[in-house]
Amino acid sequence: MLFSISHVAEDSKARNGILHLAHGSVSTPAFMPVGTLGTVKAIFMEDLEDLGINLILGNTYHLYLRPGLETVAEAGGLHKFIMWDKNILTDSGGFQVFSLAPFRKIEEGGVRFRSHIDGSYHSLTPEKVVEAQKILGSDILMPLDICTESGISKKKALEALVITSDWARKSRDEWLKLKENGIGELFGIVQGNFYMDLRERSIQELVELDLPGYAIGGLSVGEDFSIFREILAHSAGLLPVEKPHYLMGIGTPEYIFEAVENGMDLFDCVFPTRIARNAMAFTHSGLLSFRREKNTRDFQPIDVDCDCRMCRKYSRAYLRHLYKSKEILAPMITTYHNLYFIQNLMAKIRSAISNNSFISFKKEFFGRYQSNRKHSI
Amino acid sequence: MLFSISHVAEDSKARNGILHLAHGSVSTPAFMPVGTLGTVKAIFMEDLEDLGINLILGNTYHLYLRPGLETVAEAGGLHKFIMWDKNILTDSGGFQVFSLAPFRKIEEGGVRFRSHIDGSYHSLTPEKVVEAQKILGSDILMPLDICTESGISKKKALEALVITSDWARKSRDEWLKLKENGIGELFGIVQGNFYMDLRERSIQELVELDLPGYAIGGLSVGEDFSIFREILAHSAGLLPVEKPHYLMGIGTPEYIFEAVENGMDLFDCVFPTRIARNAMAFTHSGLLSFRREKNTRDFQPIDVDCDCRMCRKYSRAYLRHLYKSKEILAPMITTYHNLYFIQNLMAKIRSAISNNSFISFKKEFFGRYQSNRKHSI
Repeated sequence: MLFSISHVAEDSKARNGILHLAHGSVSTPAFMPVGTLGTVKAIFMEDLEDLGINLILGNTYHLYLRPGLETVAEAGGLHKFIMWDKNILTDSGGFQVFSLAPFRKIEEGGVRFRSHIDGSYHSLTPEKVVEAQKILGSDILMPLDICTESGISKKKALEALVITSDWARKSRDEWLKLKENGIGELFGIVQGNFYMDLRERSIQELVELDLPGYAIGGLSVGEDFSIFREILAHSAGLLPVEKPHYLMGIGTPEYIFEAVENGMDLFDCVFPTRIARNAMAFTHSGLLSFRREKNTRDFQPIDVDCDCRMCRKYSRAYLRHLYKSKEILAPMITTYHNLYFIQNLMAKIRSAISNNSFISFKKEFFGRYQSNRKHSI
Repeated sequence: MLFSISHVAEDSKARNGILHLAHGSVSTPAFMPVGTLGTVKAIFMEDLEDLGINLILGNTYHLYLRPGLETVAEAGGLHKFIMWDKNILTDSGGFQVFSLAPFRKIEEGGVRFRSHIDGSYHSLTPEKVVEAQKILGSDILMPLDICTESGISKKKALEALVITSDWARKSRDEWLKLKENGIGELFGIVQGNFYMDLRERSIQELVELDLPGYAIGGLSVGEDFSIFREILAHSAGLLPVEKPHYLMGIGTPEYIFEAVENGMDLFDCVFPTRIARNAMAFTHSGLLSFRREKNTRDFQPIDVDCDCRMCRKYSRAYLRHLYKSKEILAPMITTYHNLYFIQNLMAKIRSAISNNSFISFKKEFFGRYQSNRKHSI
């Protein structure tokens, strides 16, 4: 059994679960750090393990282009290539084809595009993307999809949806074929832009495929938070309750709490690691920017309420100095801290759910956490 | 007693010693990693300690400009600011004033220059530089000096030498004044360009000051290896035998063996950490460049004969992928390995000296180590 729900909160749709994957069990709700190219940026694998992280993301589009599937295959799969023996979910790269490639064209059976690295032409089909993830040895596979931007017409959103559903079916068929020789779990990706009825249709068509898990895609792409909430609540409520629910591309406390409250189990986002490279850290009071002058002689730890290895050692003043000097040690320290902060938050959320105190924990958290980034300390 | 010599080799001038400093004892010959701005680039302090490193370099010129002495003073000194409780030697910054500053002028009592960061004007005198290092809390202090380039006239080299000797005397006087309240050990820096008689004069004038240790500066600045050897052998032979001998700015096996053979005890260089950021690693066969195509599917460790944490885990193919993708993990892994390689080499050198087998160990080492960088594997 892939997913077992151990507790459903009394105060919301939040739930505790365990995802049983090939490389170990994952307690949910869980945040998955993003390791696009086979490395979560600026952190050692050993430190990811120290942080209790047992599921990270890779990206099929990126890894297909570099280092290429042949190299990964020769290494014995992605786990062995990057030396990570916990779980890996690989995104299909649908999102990347449509956001990074300098040219792409939907054509019979798939998408033709030019590499953002060297301009070379490539074609991906849903079948090829499943096969690629079989080669990578992913524990969770995502099908090729079309993620549309906010503000497009319903007609265009529908066109993308029809193709996405078609690709999902083809992905499922290919996955079933390959399943005999061992393969990870294939999730479906709900699309439908910001149209409620298209979201419904997408879910309906995916549910018919009876996939091991379901992801909501195409949210947190620039829309207002209120719209995000509305679509999320609506879509999440329609997902098969017993399957794992993955909300793609979110990773701030605001979005994580909202997702958990709506019964979502998995999330991923570059945010915690990206802001670390941009001189920003999570704290229990909100985001801290090392670019702010006031940190020059602030000898407090990054987050006064954090007991991570970095907060027990380094000061804000030192971090500011390192960032100003463009020293690599700066993102190394802050990446570790930011992932610790999110891991710790997820552990507290899981504990609050099991105590039926999720909503009160949320209020307590935001009583201190200043959401507005303009107010960063 | 600052320095005790425990063994002198029978086959060369190489010697084993122990440097007793305020933040612990250092076995010599020792290599000191460079941490110009208060961080050895791309490595955690904890990992430096794991590597058995107990003496690193800082740079007074750089730290004076950024973060500034006031900030470091408020933190309680450089050790506390950077959270490193082993030893720190700070270079004076003489070399940097003359190589980095966009303008500098020797004037009465010191040097006036513009910052390479923001163009602001500053003046440093030998006294100020000693005071700065007192504020930093350096375990070993270096006096302000003038490091001249290869190829200048004897007249110019003499002028620089006269000023360097004058500054050394003023540094010594200031250091003696501050000594009552506790201060690290002040070394003298031998200059004199590539003129034997000027080197002799420099050493003579410094020895008269009876400083705790002596450094040879102005070598490995672009001259041929044969000239380096000649000047080194000559200068090293004139240093007071019982004092610690520091050869500034060298950090490759070729130069380290040469220095040790001539009775030098300490060395520093950005080389091992800088090449790690430029996709190069030390191996027992010579330098390995991850830029070379042949490493694409080479799943061997960085160095097949290394048992460091990184070599036990990561492959050349993965490293090449990380470097091509400009991932921060690449210099993180290679910096650790390169420093391990040099630390391990120094340990073997110390052991060979004590067994009177230094020269045979040197032959054995270069029997495998390919010095020519063009032949990197």
